Amino acid sequence: MRILDVTVQDVIRSLEEPAGVLESTVDKIICGRSHELVQGIAVSFSATYEALNRAAELEANLFITHEGLFYSHHEGAHEMLKSDPVYQAKQALIEARHLTVYRFHDYPHRYTPDEITLGLIEAIGYDRYAIRHLSSASIIHLPSGQTVRQITEHLKAKLQLSHVRVIGNMDMICDRIGITVGYRGGGPHLIPMYENEQLQLIIAGEGPEWETPEYIRDASALGGSKSLILTGHAASEEPGMRRAADRIRQQFPNVPVHFIPVAPIFQVV
Amino acid sequence: MRILDVTVQDVIRSLEEPAGVLESTVDKIICGRSHELVQGIAVSFSATYEALNRAAELEANLFITHEGLFYSHHEGAHEMLKSDPVYQAKQALIEARHLTVYRFHDYPHRYTPDEITLGLIEAIGYDRYAIRHLSSASIIHLPSGQTVRQITEHLKAKLQLSHVRVIGNMDMICDRIGITVGYRGGGPHLIPMYENEQLQLIIAGEGPEWETPEYIRDASALGGSKSLILTGHAASEEPGMRRAADRIRQQFPNVPVHFIPVAPIFQVV
Repeated sequence: MRILDVTVQDVIRSLEEPAGVLESTVDKIICGRSHELVQGIAVSFSATYEALNRAAELEANLFITHEGLFYSHHEGAHEMLKSDPVYQAKQALIEARHLTVYRFHDYPHRYTPDEITLGLIEAIGYDRYAIRHLSSASIIHLPSGQTVRQITEHLKAKLQLSHVRVIGNMDMICDRIGITVGYRGGGPHLIPMYENEQLQLIIAGEGPEWETPEYIRDASALGGSKSLILTGHAASEEPGMRRAADRIRQQFPNVPVHFIPVAPIFQVV
Repeated sequence: MRILDVTVQDVIRSLEEPAGVLESTVDKIICGRSHELVQGIAVSFSATYEALNRAAELEANLFITHEGLFYSHHEGAHEMLKSDPVYQAKQALIEARHLTVYRFHDYPHRYTPDEITLGLIEAIGYDRYAIRHLSSASIIHLPSGQTVRQITEHLKAKLQLSHVRVIGNMDMICDRIGITVGYRGGGPHLIPMYENEQLQLIIAGEGPEWETPEYIRDASALGGSKSLILTGHAASEEPGMRRAADRIRQQFPNVPVHFIPVAPIFQVV
C-alpha cells in the first residue's frame, strides 16, 4: 500500500482548522519537522516513554499528545531538566526513532464543543443528555435522577477505572450534572457553577484539594445537596484523545492511526 | 479560673515571632479583632464549617487555621462568593459566635525548620533520621532501608489514613527520602530534588498529576528507582498544626487550647 504523501503539516492543519487561529497556545511541534511525510500516526493523552516506544514499534513517525513531553504545561520548565537522566533518555529515544511530536492541547479544547470534554461525555453515554456546552464544561440533564453512587459506578464501568475520589453524599439523587475535564476542578471555576447552573454534582479531572472539595465539605455540613467526583486528570481526557484519533483516521484513511492508551498513573494503597 | 488577659494580638505575636517579619504573606486576621481577650483557642488545618462550630461549642473565640476560610489561597476569590449560600452561612456562624479567625500559613512554613514539615516528620517518627532541612522539604536517611510498601504502611498507620496514592515500584528499597507537605508536589520543585538529593522516594501532600507523577512513570519505564507517595494535602499538614497547638498550649498555660482535626476529605470508591 502506498501512503499518499501526507505531511505532518497536513495533519496539523486539519487538527487546528476547526478551532480557528489561536493567538496564544502551547500547541506546536515540540520536536521533529513539519514537512516530514507521515508513515503512521500515534495519538495519546500523554507522550510517556512507553507510549513513544510503542509508537516507534508500530512504525508511526508522528506522535500527537495532549500533555507535554517533559512534565510541565509550559516549555520553560525543560531547561532545568537538561542534565536529568530521564529527560536525556526520552530525548534520545525520540531522536533515535525519528519521531515528530506534536502537542494537541489548546486546539481541541477550543473546538465547539470542546472535543476533549465531548469525548468524555460520549464515552460515558451522556451525550444524548447534554443540554448545554459552555467553553469549559458541559451541562447534563439526566431525565431520571440517579444517586451519586450509581453515577460513580457507571463512570467506573464505562471508563474502566479502579477508583475515583468522591466528596459529598453518595445517596443524593442528581439530575443536573456538570462535566469538566483535566485540571479544571479548581474553586474559581467550579464553585460558582454549582449555583449558576443549579448543579447537584460535578464530575471533574483534578484540582487543588483545599478549593472545591472544602466547599463541598461545608455545603454538606449545612445539609446541602452538592457532590464532586474526581476521576483523575488522564481518565477525564483520554476519551477525548481517543475521539480525536478516530476523527484523524477518517480524515486520512490511507495513514495508519494508532490510539495508545496510558495505564492509570496511581496505585491507591 | 481567671484567664489572664491574653489578647488575640499576644497570641499572634508569639506565633509570628520565630519567623521574623514577612514582607508578603496571606497570614492575617481574616475576621474579628486583634484587641479581643482570648477565652479559648481552637487550632485546625482548615476552618471548615464544622470545625468553627465545634470551636464555638468549646467556647473558643480565637480560631487559628492553616488554610483559608473560603476555599482559596488568596482572598481575592471571596468576592465571587458573596451571594453563595454556603459562604453566607459560614459568615453568619462566625459573626453569631463572635469568632476571630487568624490564618497561620506562611509563618509556620518559614520557621527554621518549617514547623508544618517538622510536624509531619515527628508524627511518622522520622525526626531522628532527618539529615537536612531545606526551606521547602526535609531529607531523611533511614539507617536500614525499607521498601516503598513498608513505608506506605508505616505512614498509613501513623497518620491513620485509609489510603495514599503511590507511583513507582512498591518493592524498591529506599534509604534516602524527601518529605514535603501541602501543595509542594509539583514538578519544578520535586523533579530536580530526586537527582540533586539522590532520593529514591518523596512523600508529598498533593501536586498536579501530569508533572511529578509522569516523571516517575518515565523513570520507572527506564528501570529507574524513583517513587512518589501522595498522602493528600490535609494529611500532610494536619500534624504540623497539631504541633503548633501543643506549642501554643505551653506558651499560654492559662488559656484552653483545642486542636480540632478534620475528617478525610475524599472517599475513594
